[in-house]
Amino acid sequence: MIDPVFLDTPLYRCEALETELGCAVSVKLETANPIRSFKARGTEVIASLLAGDGSRAVVCASAGNLGQALAWSGRSRGLDVTVVASRFAPATKLDRIRAFGARLELVDGDFDLARQRAAAIARYDGIRLVEDSLDIETCEGAATIGLELVDTVPSFDAVLIALGGGAMATGIGHVLKALAPGVEVICVQPLGAPAMTHSWHRRSVVTTDSTDTIADGVAGRFPIPAVLDDLLLVADDAVLVREASIIAGMRLLLDHAGLVVEPSAALGVAAVLEDRDRFAGRHVVTIVCGGNVDMDAYHRWVGTAPIPRS
Amino acid sequence: MIDPVFLDTPLYRCEALETELGCAVSVKLETANPIRSFKARGTEVIASLLAGDGSRAVVCASAGNLGQALAWSGRSRGLDVTVVASRFAPATKLDRIRAFGARLELVDGDFDLARQRAAAIARYDGIRLVEDSLDIETCEGAATIGLELVDTVPSFDAVLIALGGGAMATGIGHVLKALAPGVEVICVQPLGAPAMTHSWHRRSVVTTDSTDTIADGVAGRFPIPAVLDDLLLVADDAVLVREASIIAGMRLLLDHAGLVVEPSAALGVAAVLEDRDRFAGRHVVTIVCGGNVDMDAYHRWVGTAPIPRS
Repeated sequence: MIDPVFLDTPLYRCEALETELGCAVSVKLETANPIRSFKARGTEVIASLLAGDGSRAVVCASAGNLGQALAWSGRSRGLDVTVVASRFAPATKLDRIRAFGARLELVDGDFDLARQRAAAIARYDGIRLVEDSLDIETCEGAATIGLELVDTVPSFDAVLIALGGGAMATGIGHVLKALAPGVEVICVQPLGAPAMTHSWHRRSVVTTDSTDTIADGVAGRFPIPAVLDDLLLVADDAVLVREASIIAGMRLLLDHAGLVVEPSAALGVAAVLEDRDRFAGRHVVTIVCGGNVDMDAYHRWVGTAPIPRS
Repeated sequence: MIDPVFLDTPLYRCEALETELGCAVSVKLETANPIRSFKARGTEVIASLLAGDGSRAVVCASAGNLGQALAWSGRSRGLDVTVVASRFAPATKLDRIRAFGARLELVDGDFDLARQRAAAIARYDGIRLVEDSLDIETCEGAATIGLELVDTVPSFDAVLIALGGGAMATGIGHVLKALAPGVEVICVQPLGAPAMTHSWHRRSVVTTDSTDTIADGVAGRFPIPAVLDDLLLVADDAVLVREASIIAGMRLLLDHAGLVVEPSAALGVAAVLEDRDRFAGRHVVTIVCGGNVDMDAYHRWVGTAPIPRS
């Protein structure tokens, strides 16, 4: 059901990064596709099923990447797609959602307010609501990354997964626990958006009043209980990283791997930077999950600045 | 014979670029692998054959990418690899050649002087000389890109290929002419290194006294006659582009595709920028052939500058 353009993504050793990080590093690159994130692996499944059963419309809340993915997947199958997002989401993500033909509705609040509004639209219009991380297709989509990872020779010791709502971590984690149980599954979240990580450690849902991180793709306050239950089954650890480490990770990926990534995609490298001893001499895979970033903000974060032109 | 990490590379529509370029644009991305260029497709074949027949050593001249590729392919097969390069080649390319375990010899001149020196080493040591674009394996390696392109649905109207020695253009060109003869094969070279393009138009070898381009990967002065003969069979056109267009192409690929590329990899986009009418409404594929670039130079070219840190 998934367009092959989103599958069998590059997985490769990046030795120039290894010198910096003190461990073997493989990159699983999810940005070299039409929507520049892994999210279409899930929306392709959803849109295929909807088109197959005659549905005409679908709605989701999105921090910005799911919305692009659903817009792309829906467009090619004749579905009317509505995306609800925060008006504070990166402009490039909002622009691309519109460009892919979706109707974009902005809320004057954060992602969790967008979730409420999307649910209301679904109820009112009687159409399918896509709930990222809760809906099994979003996890199954991410799980295909796991299937691609376990095919790898040589294998690796740990996989570093950005943790937001939990679809990527539970999807990949389930596959690894089933097919490569020796691989450590480590979720990484920003200190400024720690709700799911705190929940995982406490083994019950912890919410936060606000988030404060540049990693917009993983900034949620209300973990979904069923997703936490799944995460407790498959994650070996969940760690929090500082904003400065996320920025340092983005800069390393630019300078030593030639990769422009959004903050969420640098969480894995940030985790290695914060705990080099833990990873020394091991082989880690980091999922570079998205590359949708406002370039002005990007240059500001990584410490490069556009030179004014006369 | 080719490690799968170099094959089946991403090929995807990049709609954010299309708005800028006025045509449908697909990117064939050859940078998401351990050596960040397409060159290992050929060196994998060479190193496999050499290891199979009991050879112990191999030498090549390189502008920087072939040397990395041969070093990588030779290392995994126990071959002693010597690379001869210009001391003016990008430092990052020279560093990576050493890091992959090759012996690096620098000449105080350009790529064509390195070719002479590599040939002398091969004669003196009695070992295999790899001559890029002349040796059929280097063209066959590039041809695997062509095989991946013709598998594409929907197909495209034109392919834009960086032209240096000619391995990539002849390799991909032969496949397209055989299997997708309706696709226009367009070679793109910098105005500052036009020897092969002038030769193609004149249908006989034209050399130049010097080169003057930032596109170090394609800067040669002495086209190989046999390669020109091949190119005359398979190329539909060969065009020259200005340095400013190459830089504009690099900037577009950064801003709208999130891709950090070396100048040679921006030649295709540069060609569209210089002749929008020719491509308007058509679907072009541009081969993003390499991403090995000194970051200081890169920031200078694309108009971003590292911000000094205290």
